[in-house]
Amino acid sequence: MKKLADIGLIGLAVMGENLVLNMESKGYTVAVYNRTVEKVDKFVNGRGAGKNFIGAHSIEELVASLEKPRKVMMLVKAGKPVDDFIELLIPHLEPGDIIIDGGNSHFPDSIRRTKYVESKGLLFIGTGVSGGEEGALKGPSMMPGGSPAAWPAVKEIFQSVAAKVEDGSPCCDWVGEDGAGHFVKMVHNGIEYGDMQIINEAYHVMKELLGMSADEMHEVFKVWNTQELDSYLTEITRDILAFKDEDGEPLVEKILDTAGQKGTGKWTGVTALDLGIPLTLIGESVFSRCLSAQKDLRVQASKVISGPKVEFKGDKAQMIEDLKMALFGAKIISYAQGYNLMMEAAKEFNWNLNYGGIALMWRGGCIIRSAFLADIKKAFDVNPELPNLLLAPYFKEKVETAQAGWRRVCAAALTNGIPVPALTSALCYFDGFRSERLPANLLQAQRDYFGAHTYERVDKPRGEFFHTNWTGRGGDTASTTYDV
Amino acid sequence: MKKLADIGLIGLAVMGENLVLNMESKGYTVAVYNRTVEKVDKFVNGRGAGKNFIGAHSIEELVASLEKPRKVMMLVKAGKPVDDFIELLIPHLEPGDIIIDGGNSHFPDSIRRTKYVESKGLLFIGTGVSGGEEGALKGPSMMPGGSPAAWPAVKEIFQSVAAKVEDGSPCCDWVGEDGAGHFVKMVHNGIEYGDMQIINEAYHVMKELLGMSADEMHEVFKVWNTQELDSYLTEITRDILAFKDEDGEPLVEKILDTAGQKGTGKWTGVTALDLGIPLTLIGESVFSRCLSAQKDLRVQASKVISGPKVEFKGDKAQMIEDLKMALFGAKIISYAQGYNLMMEAAKEFNWNLNYGGIALMWRGGCIIRSAFLADIKKAFDVNPELPNLLLAPYFKEKVETAQAGWRRVCAAALTNGIPVPALTSALCYFDGFRSERLPANLLQAQRDYFGAHTYERVDKPRGEFFHTNWTGRGGDTASTTYDV
Repeated sequence: MKKLADIGLIGLAVMGENLVLNMESKGYTVAVYNRTVEKVDKFVNGRGAGKNFIGAHSIEELVASLEKPRKVMMLVKAGKPVDDFIELLIPHLEPGDIIIDGGNSHFPDSIRRTKYVESKGLLFIGTGVSGGEEGALKGPSMMPGGSPAAWPAVKEIFQSVAAKVEDGSPCCDWVGEDGAGHFVKMVHNGIEYGDMQIINEAYHVMKELLGMSADEMHEVFKVWNTQELDSYLTEITRDILAFKDEDGEPLVEKILDTAGQKGTGKWTGVTALDLGIPLTLIGESVFSRCLSAQKDLRVQASKVISGPKVEFKGDKAQMIEDLKMALFGAKIISYAQGYNLMMEAAKEFNWNLNYGGIALMWRGGCIIRSAFLADIKKAFDVNPELPNLLLAPYFKEKVETAQAGWRRVCAAALTNGIPVPALTSALCYFDGFRSERLPANLLQAQRDYFGAHTYERVDKPRGEFFHTNWTGRGGDTASTTYDV
Repeated sequence: MKKLADIGLIGLAVMGENLVLNMESKGYTVAVYNRTVEKVDKFVNGRGAGKNFIGAHSIEELVASLEKPRKVMMLVKAGKPVDDFIELLIPHLEPGDIIIDGGNSHFPDSIRRTKYVESKGLLFIGTGVSGGEEGALKGPSMMPGGSPAAWPAVKEIFQSVAAKVEDGSPCCDWVGEDGAGHFVKMVHNGIEYGDMQIINEAYHVMKELLGMSADEMHEVFKVWNTQELDSYLTEITRDILAFKDEDGEPLVEKILDTAGQKGTGKWTGVTALDLGIPLTLIGESVFSRCLSAQKDLRVQASKVISGPKVEFKGDKAQMIEDLKMALFGAKIISYAQGYNLMMEAAKEFNWNLNYGGIALMWRGGCIIRSAFLADIKKAFDVNPELPNLLLAPYFKEKVETAQAGWRRVCAAALTNGIPVPALTSALCYFDGFRSERLPANLLQAQRDYFGAHTYERVDKPRGEFFHTNWTGRGGDTASTTYDV
């Protein structure tokens, strides 16, 4: 009797091919299937030749070639194809079998699919897979959520293929129920937007305010990559700044300054608005991409609207040090905001999220991997109930230390007309977060004035609402249906 | 034969009652109906006694009492009730009759309903009504959209009841097709969030940085209300700051600093993200409300996280003047961003929006009414194809003039640890908008580095995409399905 496969995969695009090659290299036998069936033979006789792959030419064959409980992973385009394959699989599977979606699905879909698949007596996993095609081959970051009962059956395979950090810990652990895996992947992508944006802003300040060349900036990022800001994005920025075009000039300066944003960064912002969580740094990062895309309008505006004369009077070395502090401070805020969003989602969707584990999953294999994440893991190890990252002693101290330089960077940039929306937004959030008193008392007074929306008082218990007849003219009735 | 009514209304909450009293006072006969039928008699014999109202006790009676083409306006809770009443009305109406939704519906619902009602041979209007209960009675701002053929039939009634500006122009005009009316109302509400937030920030700076008392601030807002910032919100802020609690202390300081945000401000932010428009000031305003709501966490943080010592060394009168400029500059940005969003929506949804008319509709009757809106109207009168408000000579000059003081305010606030997220976000947007070159070239390099996403070049035509093998290791294939 032929050996059965440990896991099956549907979807032999480069990502799928790389992931199964990774699995096979760890000792697993993988059955592979693709809707365009020729790809199956091409792969089994090509990149997969001589390896432990079983080519399946139909869903039936795929399912028949799997050890029980069967594990079928899809790496197909998010959306309808995922639902279609679920429908095709269900009739061939038995109770306890597991359907895994490894694509870029939006978390509400994974919530829905978990419930649906479970209603058929099967188990479901929706897993974020980060690290791109190279990560899939060499070790991705994997963020699985779904039916908790499915985890023990896939844990060994997933953790084998995942990236490892220095001590050998895999960048993959159980995230939480139903859509939690894809939710955390979405937040990861939002954080990636933020990390990139603040590096962009530092580059912009170095170039426009300090007049630095790409080579000089390269040297700075090289140093930064050995310190607090040690991360994959710092590393590649260092490399990019050193890369020369054919004419010997820095290639980065030849690249058009317009970026797209129709992705998961947007989802993160929308989800933050829906859940009422102030995710300002990522929000500004998404909007910055939108503004960058309005290139024609900007060119037109640049010709007619004048700004201040750029004039840097300070100490350049100090400002570079300040920039590092600004990036570090803003980065702490960004992760604090991202964790705030995950904590709120956990409440909203009844997830038991593994906060320290999430930091560990992001620690390697993905775009936002950094030394920094080890400290987040530690903070949750020390206090699993930590209500906010900024309240962890380590981060509190770091951000307190970072703030002086960070403030100088923001003040200098705003004075000189250099846009630093993410750095300033994060700083304002920091100042708001540490404020016992914000000016929303005036806002509540305004709302009560024009709409009789009522307010609470600082000298009365929460939950007691007051309305004032501010003008002597208005009524005493609170507004209900017609909120403005 | 009994006189027929000019228009019918469903929904006798205070808002509905006030609006029909307004209509009746302008000489119209109004038929009124309410699901809880006792309310009909109570109104007709109460606030409506002796006036030209026809009480209807069923949908049939309501419809039978109307002049043709029949106009039935609903002022009921947004959502299912609107759809329910549409279903109840349809069988009793004839081709050319008009169903009007005056509630706070979300624009995609109004798009859907217009199509549906039109498919039944009828006409639909979704109209924003702003100004709250008092506005409904004395003259609201009305923003109707839907079936263009319906407009001539309701124009006279709507414009009669709407608020009027000094020259007698009504704050009501046709906005555009299907969901355009409710879209513009949504943007109005988002702008309201922004206008309130920047006033809050100015108040915060006056109080915390300049150490001003409520009475001193009252005097400042009193002066501001006679200048560039002349607006309803400036006016009520002036009044609020002067209002004393029973103990003689300013009431505003007794109010709890937590605000809600589960409203249309959120919709505006989500829509901006969906359409890819940088609506940063409103976004920060919504997020500021979210942060204000995290009161317990802030209190906790305020006890352990330290900030800079607040120290104002400048000239107080100058800083107050600077604050005015900051508010004025930020306000111009906020409206420029809001118009940017409406212009993009017009493209996306195929609306012919009446941009100058929109400013006029907001000019009176609603919370954001201000002198400022007259200048927006003028800008579109001069150039109906204006691509961005900041490119109108008037606003370009105003914002250029405002920027020096605005920059000083932001720098001082950030240096002293006072959060001004909307003012700084707007300033960063301004600096980004007037930048021919933003740092997104580095971002594109990063995306190409880790994900082979390709980039365009400044020295090549748009639409030509390049990929660089930055490391010498990676492949030459661009990523497609698995965007990170």
